[in-house]
Amino acid sequence: MNAEIIAVGSELLLGQIANTNAKFISNQLSELGINVFYHTVVGDNPGRLKEVIEVAEKRADLIIFSGGLGPTKDDLTKETIASHLNVPLTLDNVALSFIEEFFAKRGRGMTENNRKQALVLEGCEVLANHHGMAPGMYLEKDGRTYMLLPGPPKELEPMFQFEAKPILAKRLNLDGTIISHVLRFYGIGEAELEVQIQDILDNQSNPTVAPLASDGEVTLRITAKAATEEEAWKLIDQKKAEILAIVGEFQYGVDDDSLTSKTVEMLLHNGLTISAAESLTAGLFQSELAEISGVSGTLVGGFVTYTEQAKIDQLGIEKELLEKFGVVSSECAAAMAVNARKLMGTDIGIGLTGAAGPEPHDGQPAGTIWIGFSIGDTLVTRKLELSGMRNTNRLRAVKYTCSYLMRLLAEKGYARV
Amino acid sequence: MNAEIIAVGSELLLGQIANTNAKFISNQLSELGINVFYHTVVGDNPGRLKEVIEVAEKRADLIIFSGGLGPTKDDLTKETIASHLNVPLTLDNVALSFIEEFFAKRGRGMTENNRKQALVLEGCEVLANHHGMAPGMYLEKDGRTYMLLPGPPKELEPMFQFEAKPILAKRLNLDGTIISHVLRFYGIGEAELEVQIQDILDNQSNPTVAPLASDGEVTLRITAKAATEEEAWKLIDQKKAEILAIVGEFQYGVDDDSLTSKTVEMLLHNGLTISAAESLTAGLFQSELAEISGVSGTLVGGFVTYTEQAKIDQLGIEKELLEKFGVVSSECAAAMAVNARKLMGTDIGIGLTGAAGPEPHDGQPAGTIWIGFSIGDTLVTRKLELSGMRNTNRLRAVKYTCSYLMRLLAEKGYARV
Repeated sequence: MNAEIIAVGSELLLGQIANTNAKFISNQLSELGINVFYHTVVGDNPGRLKEVIEVAEKRADLIIFSGGLGPTKDDLTKETIASHLNVPLTLDNVALSFIEEFFAKRGRGMTENNRKQALVLEGCEVLANHHGMAPGMYLEKDGRTYMLLPGPPKELEPMFQFEAKPILAKRLNLDGTIISHVLRFYGIGEAELEVQIQDILDNQSNPTVAPLASDGEVTLRITAKAATEEEAWKLIDQKKAEILAIVGEFQYGVDDDSLTSKTVEMLLHNGLTISAAESLTAGLFQSELAEISGVSGTLVGGFVTYTEQAKIDQLGIEKELLEKFGVVSSECAAAMAVNARKLMGTDIGIGLTGAAGPEPHDGQPAGTIWIGFSIGDTLVTRKLELSGMRNTNRLRAVKYTCSYLMRLLAEKGYARV
Repeated sequence: MNAEIIAVGSELLLGQIANTNAKFISNQLSELGINVFYHTVVGDNPGRLKEVIEVAEKRADLIIFSGGLGPTKDDLTKETIASHLNVPLTLDNVALSFIEEFFAKRGRGMTENNRKQALVLEGCEVLANHHGMAPGMYLEKDGRTYMLLPGPPKELEPMFQFEAKPILAKRLNLDGTIISHVLRFYGIGEAELEVQIQDILDNQSNPTVAPLASDGEVTLRITAKAATEEEAWKLIDQKKAEILAIVGEFQYGVDDDSLTSKTVEMLLHNGLTISAAESLTAGLFQSELAEISGVSGTLVGGFVTYTEQAKIDQLGIEKELLEKFGVVSSECAAAMAVNARKLMGTDIGIGLTGAAGPEPHDGQPAGTIWIGFSIGDTLVTRKLELSGMRNTNRLRAVKYTCSYLMRLLAEKGYARV
């Protein structure tokens, strides 16, 4: 099955937003083994949309549309498709009652143009929208499959994953299932990871194994086809065990995990509290942890000590230490970590200091970063020598801190989650 | 002139990256008044690329390609176009010496496949690549214009802006120039801003005025065409004055300014130092300021006081105050701001507290945020009631803090920059 994704919306052609829907859908389709050969973007113009559909029908058998299902007069995707396919639009009562409920809940009257959103292509399978008003549609006609999805990513993404994808999976393989599982790694480059598991990558068939790198992380997506979910998971678990036997030390999580979410989970699970003293990151480490709901069970607080004087005044670091070793030093990172831990009365203290760039700092080249980890009686410092831009360096320092903290805790016998 | 943008690259069709190049180019073309009617994405496949070019030639007179100019055998954009247009490829000596220099600088030998990057379409105008090896190309043939750009955004963006755009501008208006200037607003919604300057929006011709909203900010892009740069700027300055006479109180910057960069600039310009005590934002305010190089001249440091106990221990806030008013209160935000300022010995102290969400906090609904501003003897608190997700709320709180701080400082007579 070959697919084309058609995004409808003048805001894309004006360069106001990027076509992230096509990226999302393509990624999802690749998990199903469906080839995407084209993306097209066209404005809110029925004539040009119709021509684009005609081009797509010549080269794809699955055509997925995003956008143009809303209540305004600019929204004309389904009207254009209805006219092109000669399929009438009919009112879907489930969608209508959902829209009416939406307005009732907010105590607002429903205007007539909102009723338009409940019109669907006759004979289609309606895809429920749990995050907005406009329903999606799935229609097979003349050997081709048409799928209509709403434009806002927060509506499109769950609708595709939970409504549309199961229909496509069923269609592709009536007696089977396809399951994907992502392994997440940190502290190893994509090239090195590929070399280490070269045999697995070279000899893959089912499951397939696909590497991808971004933002200093590397992921491996394992995708298995089987008759049942249980069998698919069995295939995935076998392959996962093979991979982790080789590069397991670098794995930190799976699927939607992030380094910060895993760090917070591990801290909470082990009943550990944490504090930090941050110089170059200036609060970024603590702020990233605080993105995770529930973090107040582990993050007590800490210090931003941007200047040398702040390190002395807030943390009680000795002036002599800073004079002797400088602020970008193992000794300074260690003192920051220990003093933050003691002042805040936490189990763990983190110290982050360095030269973010673009200029050298305290005689150290841009990208030199020292991180201190104070865990009970254990004190460890690590040096990073990064070559990125100022803010990439700051973010990498935070990611590395999470990754290395989890490894240190595991070495001390704390359970990974 | 009507344009189509064709991105070449299988990584786009696999959903590994979004087509941000099309967004960037579209935005740039809209400044020139060039309509973009289609974006197309196609893989690294010469047959399908050729078909896509044939479709584009029927509907566009400017066709811009991105990607596929590199040294590997997958890179075949220019080879396919050369064959399709029946134009030979010739070696560009300037590009070749640039590539040789690139390798010499790094002390590495140049492999033969890198030579391929110096081949260009015969008769084209070569677009220099100052951030990579593959040059771009501009070619007019049979009444159509073809532009080839490299895929990596850090190469494509400067090449488009500084090499390609001037050629297009010249082509559109031989004796004139087009200049764009962006005004940035915060604290006013897009709809309200449009209502306030409705007359200006309704009666625009030259300069044009285009509003755009994103991430809680609103921008107005003023674009003027004139015979000389001087005249274009005169037109822009007149229109800018008209707009700012109505909504000037909400404007914080222009062009590439951000709320944080303007805040740091204003603090540095006025010789003011700042500190903060952060609860729900947990360091995000200080970390965002620290994104700006040179911030150490104003940001001394501060506190992350995530728990109630941390507010008491680190900041010396009285337990009675927290018991009486709660941690999500004007009183708490005020005490955090004042105590941070005094403890850090700075001119300004900021206090941030609230319920980020998704759960209520201390009896206050998610999205309730209090910000304290302590500036010398002045103490002001402001309440926000936001309805976003947890991390949107945290980021909005930081943006609002910057915006409101600049207004408070201006009211006290400090110079805006």
